[in-house]
Amino acid sequence: MAQPTRSVTLDAAGRHAPPDPLDPAAARRRLATPERLREFFAPRSIALVGASDSSGWGRFVVDSLRTAGFTGALRPVHPKHPTAFDLPTVPSLRALDAPVDLAYVFAPTHAVESVLDDAAAAGVRNAVVLASGYGDGGDAQGRELERRLVEQAVARDITLLGPNCLGFVNAAASVAPFGLGIVPPLRRGPVGIVLQSGALTSNVLAFARVHQVGISLLTSMGNEAVITTADVVEHLIADDDCEVIGLFLESVRDAPRFTALAAAAMAAGKPIVALKVGRTEAGQRTALAHTGALAGDDAVVDAAFRQYGVIRVKSLEELLVTCGLMGSGQVPSGRRVGVVTASGGACDIIADRSTDEGVEIVEFAPATTAALRAVLPPFAAAQNPLDVTGVILADRGSAQSALGDVALNAVVDDPGVDFVFNMLALPQAEPPDPSVVERRVAEVAATTARSRVPVVNFTATCTDLSPYAQSLLDRHGLHALGGIEFGLTAIGHALTWHETRLAPPAVGAGTAATAPPGLPSGPWSEARGRDLLAASGVPLVPAELVIDADAAVAAALAFGGPVALKICSAEITHKSDIGGVALGVSGADEVRTAFGRVLAAGRAATSAIDGVLVSPMRAPATELFVGVTVDPSFGPVLAVGLGGVFIEVLHDVALRLLPVDPGQVRRMLGELRGAAVLGGARGTRPADLDRVSEVVAGVAAAAAGLGPALQTLEINPLRVDGGDVEALDVLVVTASS
Amino acid sequence: MAQPTRSVTLDAAGRHAPPDPLDPAAARRRLATPERLREFFAPRSIALVGASDSSGWGRFVVDSLRTAGFTGALRPVHPKHPTAFDLPTVPSLRALDAPVDLAYVFAPTHAVESVLDDAAAAGVRNAVVLASGYGDGGDAQGRELERRLVEQAVARDITLLGPNCLGFVNAAASVAPFGLGIVPPLRRGPVGIVLQSGALTSNVLAFARVHQVGISLLTSMGNEAVITTADVVEHLIADDDCEVIGLFLESVRDAPRFTALAAAAMAAGKPIVALKVGRTEAGQRTALAHTGALAGDDAVVDAAFRQYGVIRVKSLEELLVTCGLMGSGQVPSGRRVGVVTASGGACDIIADRSTDEGVEIVEFAPATTAALRAVLPPFAAAQNPLDVTGVILADRGSAQSALGDVALNAVVDDPGVDFVFNMLALPQAEPPDPSVVERRVAEVAATTARSRVPVVNFTATCTDLSPYAQSLLDRHGLHALGGIEFGLTAIGHALTWHETRLAPPAVGAGTAATAPPGLPSGPWSEARGRDLLAASGVPLVPAELVIDADAAVAAALAFGGPVALKICSAEITHKSDIGGVALGVSGADEVRTAFGRVLAAGRAATSAIDGVLVSPMRAPATELFVGVTVDPSFGPVLAVGLGGVFIEVLHDVALRLLPVDPGQVRRMLGELRGAAVLGGARGTRPADLDRVSEVVAGVAAAAAGLGPALQTLEINPLRVDGGDVEALDVLVVTASS
Repeated sequence: MAQPTRSVTLDAAGRHAPPDPLDPAAARRRLATPERLREFFAPRSIALVGASDSSGWGRFVVDSLRTAGFTGALRPVHPKHPTAFDLPTVPSLRALDAPVDLAYVFAPTHAVESVLDDAAAAGVRNAVVLASGYGDGGDAQGRELERRLVEQAVARDITLLGPNCLGFVNAAASVAPFGLGIVPPLRRGPVGIVLQSGALTSNVLAFARVHQVGISLLTSMGNEAVITTADVVEHLIADDDCEVIGLFLESVRDAPRFTALAAAAMAAGKPIVALKVGRTEAGQRTALAHTGALAGDDAVVDAAFRQYGVIRVKSLEELLVTCGLMGSGQVPSGRRVGVVTASGGACDIIADRSTDEGVEIVEFAPATTAALRAVLPPFAAAQNPLDVTGVILADRGSAQSALGDVALNAVVDDPGVDFVFNMLALPQAEPPDPSVVERRVAEVAATTARSRVPVVNFTATCTDLSPYAQSLLDRHGLHALGGIEFGLTAIGHALTWHETRLAPPAVGAGTAATAPPGLPSGPWSEARGRDLLAASGVPLVPAELVIDADAAVAAALAFGGPVALKICSAEITHKSDIGGVALGVSGADEVRTAFGRVLAAGRAATSAIDGVLVSPMRAPATELFVGVTVDPSFGPVLAVGLGGVFIEVLHDVALRLLPVDPGQVRRMLGELRGAAVLGGARGTRPADLDRVSEVVAGVAAAAAGLGPALQTLEINPLRVDGGDVEALDVLVVTASS
Repeated sequence: MAQPTRSVTLDAAGRHAPPDPLDPAAARRRLATPERLREFFAPRSIALVGASDSSGWGRFVVDSLRTAGFTGALRPVHPKHPTAFDLPTVPSLRALDAPVDLAYVFAPTHAVESVLDDAAAAGVRNAVVLASGYGDGGDAQGRELERRLVEQAVARDITLLGPNCLGFVNAAASVAPFGLGIVPPLRRGPVGIVLQSGALTSNVLAFARVHQVGISLLTSMGNEAVITTADVVEHLIADDDCEVIGLFLESVRDAPRFTALAAAAMAAGKPIVALKVGRTEAGQRTALAHTGALAGDDAVVDAAFRQYGVIRVKSLEELLVTCGLMGSGQVPSGRRVGVVTASGGACDIIADRSTDEGVEIVEFAPATTAALRAVLPPFAAAQNPLDVTGVILADRGSAQSALGDVALNAVVDDPGVDFVFNMLALPQAEPPDPSVVERRVAEVAATTARSRVPVVNFTATCTDLSPYAQSLLDRHGLHALGGIEFGLTAIGHALTWHETRLAPPAVGAGTAATAPPGLPSGPWSEARGRDLLAASGVPLVPAELVIDADAAVAAALAFGGPVALKICSAEITHKSDIGGVALGVSGADEVRTAFGRVLAAGRAATSAIDGVLVSPMRAPATELFVGVTVDPSFGPVLAVGLGGVFIEVLHDVALRLLPVDPGQVRRMLGELRGAAVLGGARGTRPADLDRVSEVVAGVAAAAAGLGPALQTLEINPLRVDGGDVEALDVLVVTASS
C-alpha cells in the first residue's frame, strides 16, 4: 500500500525536519541540506579532475568560470598531462596541498569511484560528476552503478551533483563550473533556476540574457543521485539571493515533499514557475525515455500545482518572461488594468489577450479622461486601453513630446486601476541623439517610483532587448516584458499566484497517519459506507437495511411514496448490473415482489448478503460525482464533477489533493466547465454552493480518516437541489495495511 | 433585409468581375483594381506634398525610401519653403514639369482637397493621404469629409490610400513611401502584409527583420476610403512577388468578398494568415473605438476563417512565424513528424506541443533506428523525438562531429515521416572558427535538398536570429522558425491549411438569388415548414394535421403506440409555453381529451389555427440542434450542436457559412466537444455520420432555397438513432423582401 505522505520531512511551515539517522534516504538527504548546498554552490576553489586541453567539456567549464567572473583558485588534476588550460596539473586530488571546495569530475564512468576516494582522502566535500551511463542508461548495470555511487557519497560525506550533469551557474557568487558555453554577459538577478535537462541550460541562458532576466543560481540536475531538485528548491527558498524559482521538470519525484516545498515557497513569497513536461501521452513517453521515471497522472500534477500556487507554463519563453515579471518588483495583485500604448492595433490585441487572462480593462475615471483630453490630439480617444497615437513619434520637438509622460501619469493616478500595462518602444542601438529616449525612460521610472500601483512595461513583440536597451532600463531600475503575448500570459500567472496566496491551501498529511482498526480489505457494504459518512456529518438519503419482505414493506410505508431497493453486500459493487436494484417501487405488493427479486439476484451472486437497503425515491435534480482515490505519487486526491455527459463524455472533473477545506471545494466547483448547471442553468434550483462545499469537504474528511488503508471513497451521485444535499449511493474500498 | 451576398463581385474562381458602371461603390472599385494597384504600389517618381524639413513624418518617409533603396525621382512640393530634404521644392503639384507616379500628401486635412485638385490637374493618378480627422474621428463632420474625399477621388480618377494612413513598403520594388522609421536592413521576400493599423507596422517589420521573414509589400490601410484591405488582398493574390498573405484585421468590412478572396487565395496556393482582433467583448469594444465599424459575431468570423482556410492567429509573433514557415518552401503536408534535436528537454517540450497541434511523433522504422544506433553514444536512445545528446557540442574534433548530419539523414529517410522538425543551434556572432557551424549548416542544406519530405528548422526559443545567423542560413537557402512554441503552432496551422485545401469549401452565394414567390413575413406554421423540408428530402417524423378529435384519434390509431399532439399555427412559435403540446398520449379517450386541451390552448392564443399535428412518440435517442440564421456581415450561417447541456450550458456549436456540402457537415460534427456522444459514448447506437451529414446538408439547402427571405430555419431536435435520422420539430421564419 502506497503511503506517499510518509516521506514528507518538512513540517507545515516548510522547515526541514531532522532526518531519521537509520534511513538510507535520510543519510543521502543529510548531504543535501540547505546548509550543505549553500557551501556546495559557492566554492572559492575548484579542481578540474581528468580534463585535458583536448576536452571540449573542460574548455567549456573553464570558459564558463571566466564568463562568471570566478576569481578563486582553479586546480587542474590529470594523471598524465603536466599542464591543462595553461595551468600546472597535479596527478591526483591527493596531491593537492590544500583541499578544494569543489571537484568537477570529468573522469569517465569507470574511473569516478576512485576519483571520489581521492576526493575524500583529500578532504574534498563536494563534487560535480559529468559522466553518464548510470541510471540514465536505463539498464540494470547502470542503476547498480548509481546505487553504489550514492553509497560511496554517503560513506565519504561527499555532496554530489549528478552524475550525467553539466554543473551549475551561480551568478550571485560569480562561479559557474558549467559544461556548456555561456554567451556573455551573464546577468545576475533574482531568479533561481533548476533544470532536469542539461542541454536546455544554453537555451534558458540565451533567452534570459536578451530579456533582462537575471539569474541567482542555475543548476543542471543530471540523475539526482544525491542532490535532488527538491533539495535545490529548498535551498533556493532559504537563499536570500533568490526571489523567484524557475523549474524545468521531467518528473516530480517526491510529490508530497514537492507540495510541502511549494507551500513553503508561497509562505516565503517566492513564486515557483514550472515547465513540467508530460502533459500529453507523447510527452510522458518521451520524458520516460530520458528519466526512467514513470510520469504520474498529469491531471493530478496540474491540480497539485494549481492548489499549491506553482505557476505552470508551457514554453521556455513563458517560463522566463514569467520569472522576469515575478522578480521585477512590479507584480500586479489586482485584475483591473490601465493600458498605455502608442498603437491602436496593440490596444486591440491587448484587449483580447487581457480577456483571455481574466484581466479587466476598466473605464477610466472622469478625472483621468479629462487629463488625457487635455494633451491628446483631437482625433484620439481618451479611453482605456489608451493609444496616445503616433504623434509622439513624429512630433518629437513639439509640445507633444511629453504626451506619453502626461498620459502615463494620468493613468497611474486613476483610482480604478490595480496596475498599469505600459508599452515601451526601445531602440536597438544607441540613437544619434539619445536624449529623447533617455528622458522618456527616466520619466517612466519617475512615474513608476511615485505610483500607487505597479507599472508593468512591455515591448510589442518578443524580440531581443539590445544591450543598449537593457543598460538604459537597468540604469533606471526598469524591467520590460518580452511582448504582448508572453507579457499578458505572465500577468495572468501573477494574478492567479497572488489569489492563491491570499487563500493558501491547507497543508499537512493527506490522510490520518494510521488506519482505524478492523478495516476490511476490499469493498465495503453500502450500509457500512453510509455509517462512515454519517459519522463525518455527510447527509445521506434515509435508508433502512432490512432482511425480510415485511420489514421492507414497513420501511417503505414509513418513508411514504415510491422507494428504491438495493442489495447490500460488500461483494457486490455493481448492483444494477446483476439486477440488485429496483427503483420507483410503490405499494406493499410491489415492495414485497421487488424485495424478493433484488434479494434473489444478490444471492445468485454471493452468499455474503447484509440485506436490502430501502430508501425513498428522490425527484430528479442536479447530480454530482464526488470521489477520493489515491494517486501513486501525490496520495489521496479528491475529484468533483457533474454527473451525466459532463463526466462521461467531457471528463469535466476538478481535482485537489487532500487535505481540502470548503473554500477549496468552492473553487473546484467554479473550475467545472458545467459550473453554470449549479447556478440553475437548466431550470433547476440554484445550488447552495456553501452547503455543497461543506458536504464535499466532509466526504474528503471521511476518506482522510481511513488513513493509509484508503483506496476509494465514492459518492455517485450526490444529489443537489438548492440547499438540499444528499448522498444517494456510496462506495468505500480499503486495503488492509 | 440584409443581402450581403449581393456585393460579391468575384466569381467562383476569385476573378474580378466587371463592376456595374452606375454603382458608386463600383466606381470606387475601378480605382483599386489589381491593375491600378500594381501601378500604385510601384511608383518610380514620388512627390512629397506639404512636408518641410521640420516634419517628422516627412523625415520618416525620406528615410524609409532610402532604406528601401528607392532610386526614382523624389520631388518635394511646398508652397513656402524653397528646399526640403536637401532638394529644391516646387510650390504646387501643378508646377511639376512632368507628372509623378505618386503623391504622398502631408498636407493638413483642410488642404487635402486642393492638393488632390492640383494632383489631377498635374496628371497624377495616385496619392497617399496621411491626414486624420475623417471617418476615424467618429463624428458626422469627419464622415462627410471622407465621403467628399471619395467623391473627389472618383471624379479625378485618383487611386488613394488612406486617409489617416502611413503609406506602404514595397520591398520587392525597392520603394517605401512610409511615415514611420524602418530599421534596416529591409528584407525582401514572399510575404505580403496588410495592416488595419499603422503603428503596428514598426513592430511587424522589427520582428520580421530578426526572424528571416522577407516582405514583398506591406501596407498600412488607414481609413480605406478608396483602396480597401480586400482590394490589396486581391492585388496580392495576383502579384507574383507574393506567396503568403499576412493580415492584421480590426474588422472584415465586406465579408462575402473576403470569403470569396480567401477561396481564391486558397485556389492559388497562397495562404492567408490573419490576426483578427475582436475575439472578445473587450477587444470588440476597443476595435470599434478605432474603426467605427461594428464587429460581427466573432464565432461566425472564426467559422468563416476555418471554412475558407484563413489561418487565424492570436499574436504578432504567431502571425509572422507562420508567414515565415508558409513562405519557406518547406511546408509540411502530413501529420507524422521525425524530430532531431541535441536536447532531451527540448524533445519533451516538442512531444507535448506536437500533441497539442495534432502532430504525431511516430516510431522510427527499424532501418532508421539501426542507422542511429551506429552513431549515437551508447547512453542515447535511438528514438523519435531524437536527442543526439550534447556530445556533438563537446566533441567537435572527434568522429562525433558528424553525428548530427548522420542522424538528420537517417530521419529524413524514414519511410514513416511526413516531415522533419530539426533544431538548429545558431551562433549570435561569427565564431572565431566558423568552419564547424558553416559545415553543419551546409550539410543540413544538402540533406534538405535531397529529402523526400520537408525539413523544418527551428531554434529552441524565440530569440532574434543574428545578422550572421541569417546570412549563414540565407547562403544555404534555409529558414529557421523562432522557437519550439511558435514553430509548432505554425506547423499546426500549415497542416490544417493543407487539409482544407484538399477538401475546399463550396463557393458561391449562400442563398438563392431570389426568394420563391408568396412567402409569409414572419414565422411559418409547422406544417408548412415540414413541407419545405420534405421537399428538400429531409426525413421528418410522420405527422398528420387534423382539425377534429375524430381525425386525431384515427391518426393516433394509424400510427399505433403513444402519440404527440402539437398545436399548429404560424402565430404560435413556443407551443409548450402556452400548453399547446401533449406528449405520450395513448388510447382513443386520451387522444380525444388531449386534442381538446391542445386546441383550446391554441385558440386562447390566436384565431389563426391550422389544426393539430399528431405524430408518433419516439424513444429517447441522441438529439441534435440544426439551425440556419443570417449573420449581418457573412449572410446565412448553419449551426449544428448536440441538444441538452451541450447547447444550453456549454454553447457547444459548430458553424459554417452556406453553401455547405455533407463533407463540411461531417467536419462540423467532429468539431463538437461532445462529438463522442455521436460515437455512442452514452450507450446509444453510434450515429451514422454520413447519413446525419447528408440530412443536415439537406436542411441547409432548404434554407438556401428561401433566398433573401430567409431569416431562421431551425430543427430542434433532429433525432439521431444510428442511421435513423428524423426532424421532430421545425421552425421557419421568413421576411418578405
